[in-house]
Amino acid sequence: MELNQIYAPIQEDLIKVRDTLKSISRVDFAWLAEQLNHVLKETGKGLRPALTLLSGKSFKYDLNYLLPMAVSVELMHTATLVHDDAIDKASTRRGQKTINSIWGDEIAILMGDYLFAKAGEFVADTQTPRVVKLFSQTLGTISSGEIAQWRASYNPNQNREDYFHRIYGKTASLFSLSTQAGAILSKAPEESVAIMKEYGDNLGIAFQIIDDILDFTSTEEAMGKPVGSDLIQGTLTLPAMMLMERNPQDNPIRKFFETRDRQYVAQAIGMVLDTGTVKECYGVAGEYRDRACRNLKSLPKAESRKSLTDLAEYIIKQGT
Amino acid sequence: MELNQIYAPIQEDLIKVRDTLKSISRVDFAWLAEQLNHVLKETGKGLRPALTLLSGKSFKYDLNYLLPMAVSVELMHTATLVHDDAIDKASTRRGQKTINSIWGDEIAILMGDYLFAKAGEFVADTQTPRVVKLFSQTLGTISSGEIAQWRASYNPNQNREDYFHRIYGKTASLFSLSTQAGAILSKAPEESVAIMKEYGDNLGIAFQIIDDILDFTSTEEAMGKPVGSDLIQGTLTLPAMMLMERNPQDNPIRKFFETRDRQYVAQAIGMVLDTGTVKECYGVAGEYRDRACRNLKSLPKAESRKSLTDLAEYIIKQGT
Repeated sequence: MELNQIYAPIQEDLIKVRDTLKSISRVDFAWLAEQLNHVLKETGKGLRPALTLLSGKSFKYDLNYLLPMAVSVELMHTATLVHDDAIDKASTRRGQKTINSIWGDEIAILMGDYLFAKAGEFVADTQTPRVVKLFSQTLGTISSGEIAQWRASYNPNQNREDYFHRIYGKTASLFSLSTQAGAILSKAPEESVAIMKEYGDNLGIAFQIIDDILDFTSTEEAMGKPVGSDLIQGTLTLPAMMLMERNPQDNPIRKFFETRDRQYVAQAIGMVLDTGTVKECYGVAGEYRDRACRNLKSLPKAESRKSLTDLAEYIIKQGT
Repeated sequence: MELNQIYAPIQEDLIKVRDTLKSISRVDFAWLAEQLNHVLKETGKGLRPALTLLSGKSFKYDLNYLLPMAVSVELMHTATLVHDDAIDKASTRRGQKTINSIWGDEIAILMGDYLFAKAGEFVADTQTPRVVKLFSQTLGTISSGEIAQWRASYNPNQNREDYFHRIYGKTASLFSLSTQAGAILSKAPEESVAIMKEYGDNLGIAFQIIDDILDFTSTEEAMGKPVGSDLIQGTLTLPAMMLMERNPQDNPIRKFFETRDRQYVAQAIGMVLDTGTVKECYGVAGEYRDRACRNLKSLPKAESRKSLTDLAEYIIKQGT
């Protein structure tokens, strides 16, 4: 199923989200306007705002609250990407040059801060302290997740629990904010907020597993970054961990972390593709998709509920 | 007058602010705890939380709202310092090694983000969307002010308007948030909120002018950074601008910006100290102190009003 079919119940409002995002770059300070325009003109698939809107659609949908929330989660996501790119010294993102590669790390730091501030302004417009608190807690979870990732880089002695903890922090927490806030702002009953949290948590983990698989199976052209980037940056993802579990003593990842010799990255990629690891990873991602969706049937409205289920399926199908 | 006398009406609550700040570093992740402890154990004079509490003291003072707000402004301040130090490649701050100098720029970026998140959590605890909005707008103003400063660095063609715009952004806006939020959260009438805004705006500008004077007149030992750091970083402050106004064609600042030869910095410092520029700068700061205080007499309560006036005087007296 195509994304525009899944987004059908919220398509018009998603356009409003994109227009609002673009309007943020209309500031008097021309230099800043150029930077904002650069970072806000292309906003990817808009998964997070879509999750907020779709989540709200099952309850008392009110765009006065949901629009600023949807804008806010996308801004927070964008801000974290701007900072991540500075940290990773990435030169391209979504086929565009990164802020740090054009204007330097200093501007990337300040632009990220500016985008966090704008995200904060929009979340304030929801007039809902509970959601503001959740928003701030999520940013704390993302930042400490990134710190944990940095701390663990090039460390071969990690287990799956470390991995799931990290990807919850860096990815799933924001999915979870997006779905929970959509429900809270639409006056969903608490049981439904909990179901939307469960959906967001598990969908986010499934999404990140798929992203981590693609880092091995996709192409530089499709991703806009080299294949094996995670390993090159010292990040152990699920496919890499599985390879290490299968070859505990002698494996190219351990050798790469010790020597930083890139030939071992190529060898690791080859082994992951050869040994059924990819299939096993898809299996794990599928389990999280199932957990995400298992309680959705309790939600009241059928159309948006179907979109949420289809979106989970869509995410799993990425790259297969 | 000493700071502890000025702080007398709020001394006990300021201790609660400091204790709360310290409690933030008690997290399970030991590495993060170490970094948080490093950055939160010494919090300087606590001017911003003091402003929030003193502002609130004139009205319906309720620590349930004022304590999280006071913690929040100090956290936002600390977060911006952590990012500034990474941007400026500073090695020490308040006599302590900076985060970036110990753990690298990457951790400084993420730690700043984490502190912004914590600041957001505390501001959410005020349960007051108006204050959350003001908080976020202030962070936007600070970030765009810093971007403007970065853009203007090593540019000799700036006027005083540029300067005041910049220092409003980078310093006064947070003073203004601190005082306004104190008033709003204490249910002050709108006229009083406006007076506290006027106080915060102008006090912040006076504070930054004094800080900019000290960069010429103080010692490396007292400041914990080299004399003339602003010029070295290409930032034109009021004393430097006055020197340029007096010597429009031939002056060491223009020569330094062209050549980056440090001998011109020493020459500029000597000229600023020789020509009465320092006295003139203190005069300008004094005007802002007067503007800050001119309407305080309309406030109801005498004791905290006196502290606000004394604090303005204290700030001006720094380094004289």
